[in-house]
Amino acid sequence: MADHPRSGAPELPATAYAVLGLLSFGRELTGYDLRKWSKNMRFFYWSPAQSQVYSELRRLLSHGYISERQEPQPGPQTKRYYRITDAGMTALRAWLGRDEVDPPVIKHSVMLRLFFGQQAEPDELRRTLRGYLCWLREQRTDLGEVGRGLLPAFQYPHLVAVWGQAYYAAETAAVEAVLAELDRLHPPTAED
Amino acid sequence: MADHPRSGAPELPATAYAVLGLLSFGRELTGYDLRKWSKNMRFFYWSPAQSQVYSELRRLLSHGYISERQEPQPGPQTKRYYRITDAGMTALRAWLGRDEVDPPVIKHSVMLRLFFGQQAEPDELRRTLRGYLCWLREQRTDLGEVGRGLLPAFQYPHLVAVWGQAYYAAETAAVEAVLAELDRLHPPTAED
Repeated sequence: MADHPRSGAPELPATAYAVLGLLSFGRELTGYDLRKWSKNMRFFYWSPAQSQVYSELRRLLSHGYISERQEPQPGPQTKRYYRITDAGMTALRAWLGRDEVDPPVIKHSVMLRLFFGQQAEPDELRRTLRGYLCWLREQRTDLGEVGRGLLPAFQYPHLVAVWGQAYYAAETAAVEAVLAELDRLHPPTAED
Repeated sequence: MADHPRSGAPELPATAYAVLGLLSFGRELTGYDLRKWSKNMRFFYWSPAQSQVYSELRRLLSHGYISERQEPQPGPQTKRYYRITDAGMTALRAWLGRDEVDPPVIKHSVMLRLFFGQQAEPDELRRTLRGYLCWLREQRTDLGEVGRGLLPAFQYPHLVAVWGQAYYAAETAAVEAVLAELDRLHPPTAED
């Protein structure tokens, strides 16, 4: 793991800060809780497997950024609760305040297919784009449900939810414009 | 590598189809050309390392989707040119026409930092968001330059470029709205 060039603090991947950030809301959480909470971040960042949550927790523990409390259960299992430490809070704040802006990374498979549209049937492209419109509609509904419960406690997640809705609305409008242009260039066949 | 459940064709990663798609524009290209061409896809999908381009070319060769022509050069080097085969064109068309819509995958680090904004100084968040606005402005300029040369030959890449510009414009408006809301909630300090 590379050391951070300026502060000497270890350089962690953004997903480690995502877990640390969820713990910064103040509650003691299990790995299971964290995975559940992280699902609210699927709209803009991340929907981790349970195993990824646990590997990030191990990483954060090794840096002293979180503490673990074990609670024996009936049977062989032990329940493990995690809490952010002062060192963890300092590390999170340093990461939030650093100057570099990591731009978003996008892998847009629908745009990729449109890019090679010359090799596709226009009707196939229309079907793909309409399928994407359905997915966008579902996302808007799901994000609407998540977003409703956020105020007044979660001001910043609420700002992200509003931004997310603007993104889905813009994508929807852009896809509709592409469909209109496609119809102009290649009028739909009768059976479409 | 898993077999495709319906057609029996091998299931390739989207990046393999991205390379195959670039070759479907009809020219015989070197790995170096492909890397150069792929840079026009960085706005929505992918900016591969040269090594990734070569590993995808090896994969496509092993499936018979592309052919290789070697041209001896002065010195020890051999120049290798790649061309899509009929089987490759069939595979690309099958991929473009399939029913499943893979939604875009986004890792939006700026939204991630805003999500945990409670732990940041509002002035730090403003700096991050303004830095992102600068990046968006550069992207719009760069995409504008790429997009200008596309018509009339590259109708579909042009549609993607128009869509990309709409995306950057929407992101810019959304970030400006977040900044305005941030100023309302936490008025800037004097020195900001």
